[in-house]
Amino acid sequence: MKLCRATHASFEQPRFGALEGSTVHVFEAGVSLDALPTSQSSHTVSLKEVTLVAPVTPSKIVCVGRNYREHAAELGNKMPEEPLLFLKAPSSVIGDGDTIELPWESERVEHEGELGVVIGRRARHISADEDPLSYVLGYTCVNDVTARDLQRKDIQFTRAKSFDTFCPVGPLIVRDINPLDAEVTTRLNGDIKQRARTSTMAFSVPFLIRYIAEIMTLYPGDLIATGTPAGVSPMKHGDVVEIEIEGIGVLRNKIN
Amino acid sequence: MKLCRATHASFEQPRFGALEGSTVHVFEAGVSLDALPTSQSSHTVSLKEVTLVAPVTPSKIVCVGRNYREHAAELGNKMPEEPLLFLKAPSSVIGDGDTIELPWESERVEHEGELGVVIGRRARHISADEDPLSYVLGYTCVNDVTARDLQRKDIQFTRAKSFDTFCPVGPLIVRDINPLDAEVTTRLNGDIKQRARTSTMAFSVPFLIRYIAEIMTLYPGDLIATGTPAGVSPMKHGDVVEIEIEGIGVLRNKIN
Repeated sequence: MKLCRATHASFEQPRFGALEGSTVHVFEAGVSLDALPTSQSSHTVSLKEVTLVAPVTPSKIVCVGRNYREHAAELGNKMPEEPLLFLKAPSSVIGDGDTIELPWESERVEHEGELGVVIGRRARHISADEDPLSYVLGYTCVNDVTARDLQRKDIQFTRAKSFDTFCPVGPLIVRDINPLDAEVTTRLNGDIKQRARTSTMAFSVPFLIRYIAEIMTLYPGDLIATGTPAGVSPMKHGDVVEIEIEGIGVLRNKIN
Repeated sequence: MKLCRATHASFEQPRFGALEGSTVHVFEAGVSLDALPTSQSSHTVSLKEVTLVAPVTPSKIVCVGRNYREHAAELGNKMPEEPLLFLKAPSSVIGDGDTIELPWESERVEHEGELGVVIGRRARHISADEDPLSYVLGYTCVNDVTARDLQRKDIQFTRAKSFDTFCPVGPLIVRDINPLDAEVTTRLNGDIKQRARTSTMAFSVPFLIRYIAEIMTLYPGDLIATGTPAGVSPMKHGDVVEIEIEGIGVLRNKIN
Protein backbone atom coordinates (compact mmCIF):
# COMPACT_ATOMS: atom_id res chain seq x y z
CA MET A 1 0.00 0.00 0.00
CA LYS A 2 1.34 3.42 -1.03
CA LEU A 3 -0.04 6.44 0.81
CA CYS A 4 0.17 10.03 -0.38
CA ARG A 5 -1.03 13.41 0.79
CA ALA A 6 -2.17 15.77 -1.92
CA THR A 7 -3.89 18.99 -2.82
CA HIS A 8 -6.60 19.13 -5.50
CA ALA A 9 -8.97 21.81 -6.79
CA SER A 10 -11.85 20.12 -4.93
CA PHE A 11 -10.05 19.74 -1.53
CA GLU A 12 -10.21 22.45 1.12
CA GLN A 13 -7.14 21.00 2.83
CA PRO A 14 -4.56 18.43 1.69
CA ARG A 15 -6.08 14.93 1.90
CA PHE A 16 -4.57 11.49 2.29
CA GLY A 17 -4.93 8.97 -0.47
CA ALA A 18 -3.85 5.48 -1.49
CA LEU A 19 -2.00 5.38 -4.78
CA GLU A 20 -2.72 2.52 -7.19
CA GLY A 21 -1.02 2.95 -10.54
CA SER A 22 -2.03 6.42 -11.65
CA THR A 23 -5.20 6.48 -9.54
CA VAL A 24 -5.49 8.11 -6.10
CA HIS A 25 -8.13 6.62 -3.81
CA VAL A 26 -8.95 9.66 -1.69
CA PHE A 27 -9.73 9.25 2.03
CA GLU A 28 -12.31 11.36 3.87
CA ALA A 29 -11.02 14.71 5.12
CA GLY A 30 -9.82 14.50 8.70
CA VAL A 31 -9.39 10.71 8.80
CA SER A 32 -7.01 9.79 11.59
CA LEU A 33 -3.70 8.23 10.62
CA ASP A 34 -4.24 5.14 12.73
CA ALA A 35 -7.44 4.46 10.78
CA LEU A 36 -5.90 4.98 7.33
CA PRO A 37 -4.79 1.44 6.52
CA THR A 38 -8.30 0.07 7.05
CA SER A 39 -10.29 3.07 5.81
CA GLN A 40 -12.46 3.08 2.69
CA SER A 41 -11.72 5.81 0.20
CA SER A 42 -14.57 8.18 -0.67
CA HIS A 43 -13.73 8.60 -4.35
CA THR A 44 -10.85 8.51 -6.81
CA VAL A 45 -8.92 11.16 -8.73
CA SER A 46 -6.18 10.84 -11.28
CA LEU A 47 -2.62 11.26 -10.05
CA LYS A 48 -2.17 13.86 -12.81
CA GLU A 49 -4.83 16.10 -11.25
CA VAL A 50 -3.30 16.32 -7.78
CA THR A 51 -0.18 17.92 -6.36
CA LEU A 52 1.62 15.73 -3.87
CA VAL A 53 2.71 17.48 -0.67
CA ALA A 54 4.82 16.22 2.23
CA PRO A 55 3.07 12.99 3.27
CA VAL A 56 3.29 13.80 6.99
CA THR A 57 2.81 16.76 9.33
CA PRO A 58 4.66 15.36 12.33
CA SER A 59 4.19 16.63 15.89
CA LYS A 60 7.88 15.87 16.22
CA ILE A 61 10.80 14.68 14.11
CA VAL A 62 13.16 12.45 16.07
CA CYS A 63 16.50 11.96 14.34
CA VAL A 64 19.28 9.50 14.98
CA GLY A 65 22.92 10.59 14.66
CA ARG A 66 25.86 8.35 13.77
CA ASN A 67 23.85 5.24 12.95
CA TYR A 68 26.17 4.11 10.11
CA ARG A 69 29.81 3.46 11.06
CA GLU A 70 31.43 4.99 7.94
CA HIS A 71 29.44 8.21 8.31
CA ALA A 72 30.49 8.63 11.95
CA ALA A 73 34.09 8.08 10.83
CA GLU A 74 33.93 10.59 7.95
CA LEU A 75 32.97 13.35 10.41
CA GLY A 76 35.63 12.21 12.90
CA ASN A 77 33.17 10.85 15.47
CA LYS A 78 33.13 7.64 17.49
CA MET A 79 30.10 5.40 17.33
CA PRO A 80 27.71 6.05 20.25
CA GLU A 81 26.95 3.29 22.77
CA GLU A 82 23.24 3.96 22.48
CA PRO A 83 21.27 5.86 19.82
CA LEU A 84 22.20 9.54 19.65
CA LEU A 85 18.91 11.44 19.39
CA PHE A 86 18.16 14.96 18.27
CA LEU A 87 15.07 16.81 17.07
CA LYS A 88 14.39 18.78 13.90
CA ALA A 89 11.71 21.50 14.04
CA PRO A 90 8.50 20.38 12.27
CA SER A 91 8.51 23.80 10.55
CA SER A 92 11.44 22.56 8.43
CA VAL A 93 9.31 19.98 6.53
CA ILE A 94 8.82 20.37 2.76
CA GLY A 95 7.61 17.92 0.13
CA ASP A 96 8.92 16.32 -3.03
CA GLY A 97 9.60 18.99 -5.65
CA ASP A 98 9.81 21.84 -3.15
CA THR A 99 12.95 23.97 -2.95
CA ILE A 100 15.64 23.76 -0.25
CA GLU A 101 16.59 27.34 0.59
CA LEU A 102 20.21 27.95 1.57
CA PRO A 103 20.27 30.27 4.61
CA TRP A 104 22.64 33.26 4.75
CA GLU A 105 23.91 32.04 8.14
CA SER A 106 25.74 29.02 6.63
CA GLU A 107 28.45 28.51 4.05
CA ARG A 108 28.16 24.73 3.92
CA VAL A 109 24.80 22.99 3.65
CA GLU A 110 24.95 19.21 3.15
CA HIS A 111 22.52 16.45 2.17
CA GLU A 112 21.88 13.47 4.43
CA GLY A 113 19.70 10.83 2.78
CA GLU A 114 17.81 8.67 5.28
CA LEU A 115 15.07 6.10 5.70
CA GLY A 116 12.12 7.80 7.40
CA VAL A 117 9.74 5.87 9.67
CA VAL A 118 6.20 7.27 10.00
CA ILE A 119 4.41 6.27 13.21
CA GLY A 120 0.89 4.95 12.74
CA ARG A 121 -0.40 4.69 16.29
CA ARG A 122 0.48 6.01 19.75
CA ALA A 123 3.57 4.28 21.14
CA ARG A 124 4.87 4.48 24.72
CA HIS A 125 6.77 1.77 26.66
CA ILE A 126 6.56 -0.99 24.06
CA SER A 127 6.52 -4.29 25.91
CA ALA A 128 9.05 -7.04 25.20
CA ASP A 129 6.49 -9.26 23.47
CA GLU A 130 5.27 -6.53 21.13
CA ASP A 131 6.73 -5.90 17.69
CA PRO A 132 7.83 -2.25 17.43
CA LEU A 133 7.14 -2.39 13.69
CA SER A 134 3.44 -2.84 14.45
CA TYR A 135 3.42 0.87 15.43
CA VAL A 136 4.61 1.92 11.98
CA LEU A 137 2.29 3.42 9.36
CA GLY A 138 4.96 3.12 6.68
CA TYR A 139 8.30 4.30 5.37
CA THR A 140 9.42 7.31 3.36
CA CYS A 141 12.53 9.14 2.15
CA VAL A 142 13.98 11.94 4.30
CA ASN A 143 16.74 14.41 3.54
CA ASP A 144 18.13 15.54 6.92
CA VAL A 145 19.61 18.74 5.45
CA THR A 146 22.39 20.07 7.70
CA ALA A 147 24.39 23.31 7.88
CA ARG A 148 27.65 21.53 8.65
CA ASP A 149 29.56 24.67 9.70
CA LEU A 150 26.88 25.65 12.21
CA GLN A 151 26.62 22.09 13.50
CA ARG A 152 30.33 22.16 14.35
CA LYS A 153 30.14 25.65 15.84
CA ASP A 154 27.01 25.20 17.96
CA ILE A 155 27.74 21.67 19.25
CA GLN A 156 23.95 21.36 19.67
CA PHE A 157 22.59 20.22 16.29
CA THR A 158 19.35 22.19 16.56
CA ARG A 159 20.04 25.35 14.56
CA ALA A 160 22.08 23.53 11.91
CA LYS A 161 19.22 21.14 11.16
CA SER A 162 16.06 23.19 11.76
CA PHE A 163 16.13 25.95 9.16
CA ASP A 164 12.92 26.19 7.15
CA THR A 165 13.02 23.77 4.15
CA PHE A 166 15.71 21.59 5.80
CA CYS A 167 13.50 18.48 6.03
CA PRO A 168 12.33 17.24 2.62
CA VAL A 169 10.02 14.22 3.13
CA GLY A 170 8.29 12.00 0.58
CA PRO A 171 7.14 11.44 -2.03
CA LEU A 172 5.02 8.61 -0.56
CA ILE A 173 4.59 6.53 2.56
CA VAL A 174 5.01 2.88 1.60
CA ARG A 175 3.84 0.19 3.98
CA ASP A 176 5.30 -3.03 2.61
CA ILE A 177 9.06 -2.58 2.38
CA ASN A 178 11.53 -4.35 4.62
CA PRO A 179 13.10 -1.62 6.79
CA LEU A 180 15.81 -4.04 7.91
CA ASP A 181 17.30 -4.34 4.43
CA ALA A 182 16.47 -1.54 1.99
CA GLU A 183 18.94 0.36 -0.15
CA VAL A 184 19.23 4.12 0.47
CA THR A 185 20.85 6.18 -2.29
CA THR A 186 21.55 9.92 -2.48
CA ARG A 187 22.34 11.56 -5.81
CA LEU A 188 23.52 15.13 -6.33
CA ASN A 189 23.01 16.34 -9.90
CA GLY A 190 22.80 12.69 -10.89
CA ASP A 191 26.04 11.57 -9.24
CA ILE A 192 25.74 8.94 -6.54
CA LYS A 193 27.04 10.42 -3.26
CA GLN A 194 25.65 8.07 -0.61
CA ARG A 195 24.61 4.43 -0.96
CA ALA A 196 24.09 1.86 1.77
CA ARG A 197 21.68 -0.82 2.86
CA THR A 198 19.76 -0.28 6.10
CA SER A 199 21.06 -3.69 7.21
CA THR A 200 24.33 -1.88 8.04
CA MET A 201 22.72 0.45 10.60
CA ALA A 202 24.22 0.24 14.10
CA PHE A 203 20.73 0.37 15.64
CA SER A 204 17.91 -1.22 13.63
CA VAL A 205 14.49 0.36 13.04
CA PRO A 206 12.68 -1.84 15.61
CA PHE A 207 15.40 -1.10 18.20
CA LEU A 208 15.10 2.65 17.56
CA ILE A 209 11.31 2.71 17.88
CA ARG A 210 11.43 0.81 21.16
CA TYR A 211 14.26 3.01 22.46
CA ILE A 212 12.55 6.32 21.59
CA ALA A 213 9.13 5.20 22.88
CA GLU A 214 10.76 4.49 26.24
CA ILE A 215 11.65 8.20 26.48
CA MET A 216 8.75 9.98 24.82
CA THR A 217 5.29 9.15 23.52
CA LEU A 218 5.25 8.76 19.76
CA TYR A 219 2.05 9.99 18.10
CA PRO A 220 0.54 9.09 14.72
CA GLY A 221 2.40 11.03 12.05
CA ASP A 222 5.58 11.43 14.09
CA LEU A 223 8.65 10.90 11.96
CA ILE A 224 11.86 9.08 12.85
CA ALA A 225 14.86 9.86 10.63
CA THR A 226 17.08 6.83 11.08
CA GLY A 227 20.53 8.24 10.31
CA THR A 228 22.59 8.76 7.18
CA PRO A 229 25.29 6.65 5.50
CA ALA A 230 28.75 7.92 4.54
CA GLY A 231 29.16 10.33 1.63
CA VAL A 232 27.57 13.58 2.81
CA SER A 233 28.60 16.52 0.63
CA PRO A 234 27.76 20.22 0.19
CA MET A 235 24.95 21.48 -2.01
CA LYS A 236 25.01 24.74 -3.98
CA HIS A 237 22.49 27.03 -5.66
CA GLY A 238 20.95 25.27 -8.65
CA ASP A 239 21.84 21.74 -7.56
CA VAL A 240 19.28 18.93 -7.59
CA VAL A 241 19.38 16.38 -4.77
CA GLU A 242 17.60 13.04 -4.87
CA ILE A 243 17.04 10.51 -2.11
CA GLU A 244 15.97 7.13 -3.47
CA ILE A 245 14.91 4.22 -1.30
CA GLU A 246 14.28 0.78 -2.72
CA GLY A 247 10.54 0.16 -2.88
CA ILE A 248 9.58 3.74 -2.00
CA GLY A 249 10.72 5.99 -4.83
CA VAL A 250 12.66 9.21 -5.31
CA LEU A 251 12.48 12.40 -3.24
CA ARG A 252 13.78 15.19 -5.48
CA ASN A 253 14.48 18.79 -4.46
CA LYS A 254 16.22 21.77 -6.01
CA ILE A 255 18.55 23.99 -4.07
CA ASN A 256 18.13 27.76 -4.10
CA MET B 1 -5.44 40.04 30.01
CA LYS B 2 -4.97 36.55 31.47
CA LEU B 3 -5.59 33.62 29.15
CA CYS B 4 -6.21 30.05 30.25
CA ARG B 5 -7.03 26.73 28.61
CA ALA B 6 -9.44 24.52 30.48
CA THR B 7 -11.62 21.46 30.46
CA HIS B 8 -15.24 21.57 31.66
CA ALA B 9 -18.13 19.10 31.73
CA SER B 10 -19.73 20.97 28.80
CA PHE B 11 -16.62 21.14 26.59
CA GLU B 12 -15.78 18.40 24.07
CA GLN B 13 -12.17 19.58 23.93
CA PRO B 14 -10.17 21.98 26.13
CA ARG B 15 -11.16 25.59 25.34
CA PHE B 16 -9.38 28.89 25.73
CA GLY B 17 -10.74 31.49 28.09
CA ALA B 18 -9.95 34.90 29.52
CA LEU B 19 -9.76 34.91 33.31
CA GLU B 20 -11.26 37.86 35.18
CA GLY B 21 -11.25 37.37 38.94
CA SER B 22 -12.93 33.99 39.41
CA THR B 23 -14.83 34.14 36.12
CA VAL B 24 -13.67 32.48 32.90
CA HIS B 25 -14.90 34.13 29.68
CA VAL B 26 -14.92 31.12 27.36
CA PHE B 27 -13.94 31.52 23.71
CA GLU B 28 -15.58 29.59 20.86
CA ALA B 29 -14.13 26.12 20.24
CA GLY B 30 -11.45 26.18 17.58
CA VAL B 31 -10.73 29.93 17.78
CA SER B 32 -7.28 30.61 16.35
CA LEU B 33 -4.64 31.93 18.72
CA ASP B 34 -3.95 35.02 16.65
CA ALA B 35 -7.62 35.97 16.96
CA LEU B 36 -7.83 35.38 20.73
CA PRO B 37 -6.93 38.85 22.01
CA THR B 38 -9.72 40.48 20.01
CA SER B 39 -12.30 37.65 20.17
CA GLN B 40 -15.61 37.88 21.99
CA SER B 41 -16.26 35.15 24.51
CA SER B 42 -19.35 33.02 23.97
CA HIS B 43 -20.27 32.60 27.65
CA THR B 44 -18.78 32.52 31.15
CA VAL B 45 -18.15 29.76 33.66
CA SER B 46 -16.80 29.91 37.19
CA LEU B 47 -13.09 29.19 37.64
CA LYS B 48 -14.15 26.63 40.27
CA GLU B 49 -15.99 24.55 37.66
CA VAL B 50 -13.09 24.17 35.23
CA THR B 51 -9.80 22.32 35.29
CA LEU B 52 -6.90 24.32 33.91
CA VAL B 53 -4.64 22.43 31.51
CA ALA B 54 -1.37 23.48 29.87
CA PRO B 55 -2.21 26.81 28.21
CA VAL B 56 -0.44 25.92 24.96
CA THR B 57 -0.06 22.97 22.59
CA PRO B 58 3.04 24.16 20.74
CA SER B 59 4.10 22.88 17.33
CA LYS B 60 7.61 23.33 18.70
CA ILE B 61 9.36 24.35 21.90
CA VAL B 62 12.51 26.35 21.24
CA CYS B 63 14.76 26.62 24.30
CA VAL B 64 17.71 28.84 25.02
CA GLY B 65 20.73 27.49 26.90
CA ARG B 66 23.15 29.54 29.03
CA ASN B 67 21.22 32.78 28.93
CA TYR B 68 22.11 33.77 32.52
CA ARG B 69 25.83 34.15 33.30
CA GLU B 70 25.78 32.55 36.78
CA HIS B 71 23.92 29.47 35.50
CA ALA B 72 26.44 28.91 32.71
CA ALA B 73 29.20 29.19 35.33
CA GLU B 74 27.57 26.76 37.79
CA LEU B 75 27.61 24.04 35.11
CA GLY B 76 31.18 24.92 34.08
CA ASN B 77 30.22 26.44 30.72
CA LYS B 78 31.33 29.60 28.95
CA MET B 79 28.73 32.06 27.77
CA PRO B 80 27.83 31.54 24.08
CA GLU B 81 28.48 34.32 21.55
CA GLU B 82 24.99 33.94 20.14
CA PRO B 83 21.91 32.25 21.61
CA LEU B 84 22.38 28.50 22.11
CA LEU B 85 19.19 26.86 20.85
CA PHE B 86 17.76 23.43 21.46
CA LEU B 87 14.33 21.83 21.12
CA LYS B 88 12.16 19.98 23.61
CA ALA B 89 9.63 17.48 22.26
CA PRO B 90 6.04 18.86 22.43
CA SER B 91 5.05 15.50 23.90
CA SER B 92 6.81 16.55 27.13
CA VAL B 93 4.26 19.30 27.94
CA ILE B 94 2.14 19.01 31.10
CA GLY B 95 0.06 21.61 32.95
CA ASP B 96 -0.05 23.15 36.40
CA GLY B 97 -0.82 20.49 39.01
CA ASP B 98 0.27 17.60 36.79
CA THR B 99 2.99 15.21 37.96
CA ILE B 100 6.61 15.17 36.76
CA GLU B 101 7.55 11.51 36.37
CA LEU B 102 11.17 10.60 37.09
CA PRO B 103 12.40 8.24 34.34
CA TRP B 104 14.34 5.08 35.21
CA GLU B 105 17.07 6.15 32.78
CA SER B 106 18.27 9.02 34.99
CA GLU B 107 19.60 9.38 38.52
CA ARG B 108 19.57 13.19 38.58
CA VAL B 109 16.57 15.18 37.35
CA GLU B 110 16.76 18.93 37.95
CA HIS B 111 14.38 21.90 37.78
CA GLU B 112 15.04 24.89 35.52
CA GLY B 113 12.56 27.71 36.08
CA GLU B 114 12.16 29.97 33.05
CA LEU B 115 10.09 32.72 31.50
CA GLY B 116 8.07 31.22 28.62
CA VAL B 117 7.12 33.29 25.58
CA VAL B 118 4.00 32.16 23.67
CA ILE B 119 3.91 33.23 20.02
CA GLY B 120 0.64 34.82 18.90
CA ARG B 121 1.10 35.11 15.15
CA ARG B 122 3.31 33.67 12.43
CA ALA B 123 6.82 35.14 12.59
CA ARG B 124 9.56 34.79 9.96
CA HIS B 125 12.33 37.29 9.10
CA ILE B 126 11.20 40.11 11.39
CA SER B 127 12.23 43.38 9.77
CA ALA B 128 14.38 45.94 11.57
CA ASP B 129 11.50 48.37 12.03
CA GLU B 130 9.16 45.78 13.54
CA ASP B 131 8.89 45.12 17.27
CA PRO B 132 9.48 41.38 17.92
CA LEU B 133 7.21 41.65 20.97
CA SER B 134 4.28 42.37 18.62
CA TYR B 135 4.42 38.64 17.69
CA VAL B 136 3.86 37.56 21.29
CA LEU B 137 0.52 36.29 22.58
CA GLY B 138 1.74 36.44 26.18
CA TYR B 139 4.04 35.03 28.82
CA THR B 140 3.92 32.00 31.05
CA CYS B 141 6.03 29.95 33.49
CA VAL B 142 8.06 27.02 32.16
CA ASN B 143 9.99 24.35 34.02
CA ASP B 144 12.65 23.05 31.59
CA VAL B 145 13.08 19.78 33.52
CA THR B 146 16.45 18.20 32.72
CA ALA B 147 18.07 14.81 33.38
CA ARG B 148 21.45 16.32 34.19
CA ASP B 149 23.38 13.04 34.03
CA LEU B 150 22.02 12.21 30.57
CA GLN B 151 22.64 15.76 29.36
CA ARG B 152 26.33 15.40 30.25
CA LYS B 153 26.54 11.92 28.78
CA ASP B 154 24.75 12.56 25.48
CA ILE B 155 26.23 16.01 24.73
CA GLN B 156 23.07 16.60 22.66
CA PHE B 157 20.42 17.89 25.11
CA THR B 158 17.51 16.17 23.37
CA ARG B 159 16.98 13.01 25.41
CA ALA B 160 17.77 14.70 28.73
CA LYS B 161 15.07 17.32 28.19
CA SER B 162 12.36 15.50 26.21
CA PHE B 163 11.06 12.77 28.52
CA ASP B 164 7.29 12.82 28.87
CA THR B 165 6.23 15.29 31.64
CA PHE B 166 9.52 17.23 31.41
CA CYS B 167 7.90 20.49 30.30
CA PRO B 168 5.43 21.87 32.83
CA VAL B 169 3.84 25.06 31.41
CA GLY B 170 1.32 27.46 32.96
CA PRO B 171 -0.84 28.14 34.80
CA LEU B 172 -1.85 31.10 32.58
CA ILE B 173 -0.69 33.15 29.64
CA VAL B 174 -0.47 36.77 30.75
CA ARG B 175 -0.26 39.51 28.16
CA ASP B 176 0.68 42.62 30.10
CA ILE B 177 3.90 41.90 31.95
CA ASN B 178 7.26 43.42 31.07
CA PRO B 179 9.42 40.55 29.77
CA LEU B 180 12.52 42.73 30.03
CA ASP B 181 12.32 42.97 33.81
CA ALA B 182 10.28 40.29 35.57
CA GLU B 183 11.39 38.26 38.57
CA VAL B 184 11.64 34.47 38.06
CA THR B 185 11.72 32.34 41.21
CA THR B 186 11.96 28.56 41.63
CA ARG B 187 11.07 26.93 44.95
CA LEU B 188 11.62 23.30 45.87
CA ASN B 189 9.46 22.17 48.81
CA GLY B 190 9.08 25.85 49.67
CA ASP B 191 12.82 26.69 49.66
CA ILE B 192 13.95 29.28 47.15
CA LYS B 193 16.47 27.67 44.78
CA GLN B 194 16.57 30.05 41.81
CA ARG B 195 15.79 33.76 41.73
CA ALA B 196 16.73 36.33 39.11
CA ARG B 197 15.27 39.16 37.09
CA THR B 198 14.93 38.70 33.33
CA SER B 199 16.86 41.98 32.99
CA THR B 200 20.00 39.92 33.68
CA MET B 201 19.52 37.68 30.60
CA ALA B 202 22.43 37.69 28.15
CA PHE B 203 19.99 37.83 25.20
CA SER B 204 16.70 39.66 25.78
CA VAL B 205 13.27 38.36 24.77
CA PRO B 206 12.98 40.64 21.68
CA PHE B 207 16.49 39.66 20.58
CA LEU B 208 15.66 35.96 20.95
CA ILE B 209 12.40 36.18 18.97
CA ARG B 210 14.11 38.01 16.12
CA TYR B 211 17.05 35.56 16.18
CA ILE B 212 14.88 32.42 16.13
CA ALA B 213 12.49 33.77 13.47
CA GLU B 214 15.49 34.29 11.19
CA ILE B 215 16.11 30.51 11.31
CA MET B 216 12.65 28.98 11.48
CA THR B 217 9.06 30.10 11.12
CA LEU B 218 7.38 30.56 14.48
CA TYR B 219 3.69 29.62 14.52
CA PRO B 220 0.91 30.69 16.88
CA GLY B 221 1.23 28.67 20.08
CA ASP B 222 4.93 27.97 19.67
CA LEU B 223 6.78 28.32 22.94
CA ILE B 224 10.18 29.86 23.61
CA ALA B 225 11.80 28.91 26.93
CA THR B 226 14.21 31.75 27.56
CA GLY B 227 16.85 30.10 29.76
CA THR B 228 17.25 29.46 33.46
CA PRO B 229 19.08 31.40 36.22
CA ALA B 230 21.63 29.88 38.59
CA GLY B 231 20.54 27.50 41.33
CA VAL B 232 19.40 24.36 39.50
CA SER B 233 19.11 21.38 41.87
CA PRO B 234 17.89 17.78 41.82
CA MET B 235 14.29 16.76 42.52
CA LYS B 236 13.22 13.55 44.27
CA HIS B 237 10.06 11.48 44.59
CA GLY B 238 7.48 13.40 46.62
CA ASP B 239 9.05 16.86 46.11
CA VAL B 240 6.95 19.84 45.04
CA VAL B 241 8.52 22.33 42.62
CA GLU B 242 7.13 25.80 41.96
CA ILE B 243 8.06 28.31 39.28
CA GLU B 244 6.76 31.80 40.09
CA ILE B 245 6.98 34.74 37.73
CA GLU B 246 6.04 38.24 38.78
CA GLY B 247 2.69 39.14 37.25
CA ILE B 248 1.95 35.63 35.98
CA GLY B 249 1.55 33.35 38.99
CA VAL B 250 2.81 30.01 40.24
CA LEU B 251 3.33 26.80 38.24
CA ARG B 252 3.28 23.95 40.78
CA ASN B 253 4.08 20.28 40.09
CA LYS B 254 4.70 17.21 42.21
CA ILE B 255 7.49 14.77 41.48
CA ASN B 256 6.82 11.05 41.24
